[in-house]
Amino acid sequence: MTDPVLAHLSADRDGIIARLKELVAAPSVSTDSAYAIGMETARDLLMTRLARSGFDNVGVLEAGGHPAVYAEWLKAPGAPTFIVYGHYDVQPPDPLALWTSPPFKPQIRDGRLYGRGVSDDKGPASIALETLAAFLAVEDRLPVNVRIFLEGEEEIGSATLEAILVKYRDRLAADAVISADGARWRADLASLNVGSRGNSRCEIALRTARKDLHSGRFGGAVRNALHELVALLGTLHAPDGSVAVAGYYDDVMELSAEERRLMATIPFDDGDFLSETGSAAFGEPGRSTLERLWTRPTLEINGLWGGYTGEGSKTVTPCEAFAKLTTRLVPGQDPADIGRKLEAHLRAHCRAGVDLAVELDPGGVAAYLVPPAHPLLKAAAEAVETALGATPIHVRTGGTLPLSDIVKTTMGLDTVMLSFSTADEDFHAPNEFFRLSAIDDGTAAWVALLRLLGAQNPAMYDGFRKSA
Amino acid sequence: MTDPVLAHLSADRDGIIARLKELVAAPSVSTDSAYAIGMETARDLLMTRLARSGFDNVGVLEAGGHPAVYAEWLKAPGAPTFIVYGHYDVQPPDPLALWTSPPFKPQIRDGRLYGRGVSDDKGPASIALETLAAFLAVEDRLPVNVRIFLEGEEEIGSATLEAILVKYRDRLAADAVISADGARWRADLASLNVGSRGNSRCEIALRTARKDLHSGRFGGAVRNALHELVALLGTLHAPDGSVAVAGYYDDVMELSAEERRLMATIPFDDGDFLSETGSAAFGEPGRSTLERLWTRPTLEINGLWGGYTGEGSKTVTPCEAFAKLTTRLVPGQDPADIGRKLEAHLRAHCRAGVDLAVELDPGGVAAYLVPPAHPLLKAAAEAVETALGATPIHVRTGGTLPLSDIVKTTMGLDTVMLSFSTADEDFHAPNEFFRLSAIDDGTAAWVALLRLLGAQNPAMYDGFRKSA
Repeated sequence: MTDPVLAHLSADRDGIIARLKELVAAPSVSTDSAYAIGMETARDLLMTRLARSGFDNVGVLEAGGHPAVYAEWLKAPGAPTFIVYGHYDVQPPDPLALWTSPPFKPQIRDGRLYGRGVSDDKGPASIALETLAAFLAVEDRLPVNVRIFLEGEEEIGSATLEAILVKYRDRLAADAVISADGARWRADLASLNVGSRGNSRCEIALRTARKDLHSGRFGGAVRNALHELVALLGTLHAPDGSVAVAGYYDDVMELSAEERRLMATIPFDDGDFLSETGSAAFGEPGRSTLERLWTRPTLEINGLWGGYTGEGSKTVTPCEAFAKLTTRLVPGQDPADIGRKLEAHLRAHCRAGVDLAVELDPGGVAAYLVPPAHPLLKAAAEAVETALGATPIHVRTGGTLPLSDIVKTTMGLDTVMLSFSTADEDFHAPNEFFRLSAIDDGTAAWVALLRLLGAQNPAMYDGFRKSA
Repeated sequence: MTDPVLAHLSADRDGIIARLKELVAAPSVSTDSAYAIGMETARDLLMTRLARSGFDNVGVLEAGGHPAVYAEWLKAPGAPTFIVYGHYDVQPPDPLALWTSPPFKPQIRDGRLYGRGVSDDKGPASIALETLAAFLAVEDRLPVNVRIFLEGEEEIGSATLEAILVKYRDRLAADAVISADGARWRADLASLNVGSRGNSRCEIALRTARKDLHSGRFGGAVRNALHELVALLGTLHAPDGSVAVAGYYDDVMELSAEERRLMATIPFDDGDFLSETGSAAFGEPGRSTLERLWTRPTLEINGLWGGYTGEGSKTVTPCEAFAKLTTRLVPGQDPADIGRKLEAHLRAHCRAGVDLAVELDPGGVAAYLVPPAHPLLKAAAEAVETALGATPIHVRTGGTLPLSDIVKTTMGLDTVMLSFSTADEDFHAPNEFFRLSAIDDGTAAWVALLRLLGAQNPAMYDGFRKSA
């Protein structure tokens, strides 16, 4: 017999799509102040709907940046409490000329809804909000206590997220976070994302002389900043791509034999991966591609420059050279510690007579792993299995999701991602789309999850919540 | 009693400076097509002046590149014939922000004229042209036959100079070349430059994937073009700056013990050299600074770039990287042979899975040494002694004067440099300047030289002219 809430959601499918289109039509681009009205429109729309659905204390939480939308329903005594996370801001739509239909006039083609932000994160967030509203409509209650938190700065590095969480800590008290952000790994495979890599950044500048010098008048008797840059940056990696910075891997949590075995069972085609990128096979020896992407840290040079780069040639011995670096970090590594090791390496390998400036990112985000025994993770896996009829495999992402790390650090809470966007949906690119079939899969999973969580005892979370 | 031509020049000093400023104001940057009008303006200015001074057959000589300005005066039967060489093109002015006054708005400060190209080569060339014009104004004749040749491609490796000399060989028949390019070694020491290093250039491009890739989704499992660039370029040099390309030094003519002894007697202060540049002591061990600069080849990275170089950071794994290289070559080395060795090195050290494109300069210029007994060299030494009151020492330059090699190769003629720019005048760098006192020294030497050459018999040159 069909769950009555799910039946309600199925009957209202056209309404769900219409409301999602209305939300996507609000151009809520957080990085560009020209879109301030679009941000406000999206917030107002969400707050109106949340209040109408039956949520309490609907409003905004802010700490100097774009406000987050907040709402709560806390009338399930004895049940656990969850923050349901999503974000209403979107990436800029540029380059506009490459869109088939306008980015803020959502259009359905071939079972996909096209529009900026439809996959990241308005579609997945709507699935969560529509499911909660359906519970309230059909049963006049939720199975658990819920605090809805819809961020407005996810696409600009969550600049004030930590400040908001600290400022409103009491109001946000919960047992764990369910994130409607993130993405399914593949459309054809049931999966749950249990981890992400962290990151940090660094910029370096070298100087070898007071000014650029003529390569004829001086060449051979003065240092060249570009020679020094390549010599210095060349010390960062071994030929196989592994990082040669002393201590870089010291705190890396190695996979257990069982974890490696499980990872090896994940269907993954190296040939498809390489043909998508046009790259030759590469990476640390003795590691599979997925291990390299999910469980090994990187140190990437993202940009470098110096000397004459215009048309033709210039016989200059450059006195300055620059590079931008970022890391991807894995569980066990501390961004600040890695920054110190990187700086120590650069200073140790910079030659005499070369001035080196190292600008380390004061922030940085640590990697995140959901504890394998976390009750929310177990419930999510069961919910996905109920909805899709297949046991979800545990995957990770090589990218960085600052939310999980920030929530863990500031509030001591773990985050489980239950998003129904898919990694191939061109978010951050032209013609972003969202598979409409995700609405069916997603609402089924969210209904199942909320019912499972309603049967949990809040004490199950005691061992996982840490005081921040 | 003062030479009447020199008296005329002294009386017209302000006019000489005004005309030089007008010439410097024409932005004749040969390497960048955006400056085409500046090139044309400089040519027109020079041709107008040469015609007005009384030269014949004023016009341009061209062979597909930037034209050279040509003029002749051949009414001294029984006297030798000289090509008087200079160039009207200049280096790019970048980086503009470091100039105190705009590069193409020449400004006098403290007895120095500042502007791009003022020292290289518009100032020194003007000294020659003004002296010749003064002879014609005062005496209505020159002591010798003169063909003026002002190149437009000196700063871009004289791409079509050889073609021009071949095309117009009959029209350029002469006994030797007097170059107003090059530079006095020091302002406080009488010297003559008897040799120069050659050069060649090369541009490389690396590709590691079809497109730039997200450093989170792909980092650690695909090659990064910037990592490959630094690894490849890092193989070019030993830490002491010597070139690590196999065979690079094979054909280098080592100095004799006597030549090294003479070079050691040249007054040179390493401390001054280093404090001028702001560089630490550097270079091949066991060689003096002058040996490094004048007698040893180099391979310099003049520019490199790739990835994201804008504000902030971008988590990209770049798929392309680029570098510009040039060499300085010494007597014995063949530019084409060195190009082949460099390409072989790059291909041998480029890793599997990396596409490498090497664009070698088809030309290149060999180093040059004036024959010690050359009659023009002897006359030049006497002229400098007359003008400055001191016997000039023989020095070389680490820079490249393609003219000498090309003229020798194509026409069999030797070149003696009589330039009154000075090596410290920041040509090829921001705030290039020219000492106004050089106008007094330079015109005195040119007047003396032309009078000495007028007394020579053309047959003295028979043993030095070689058929090309």
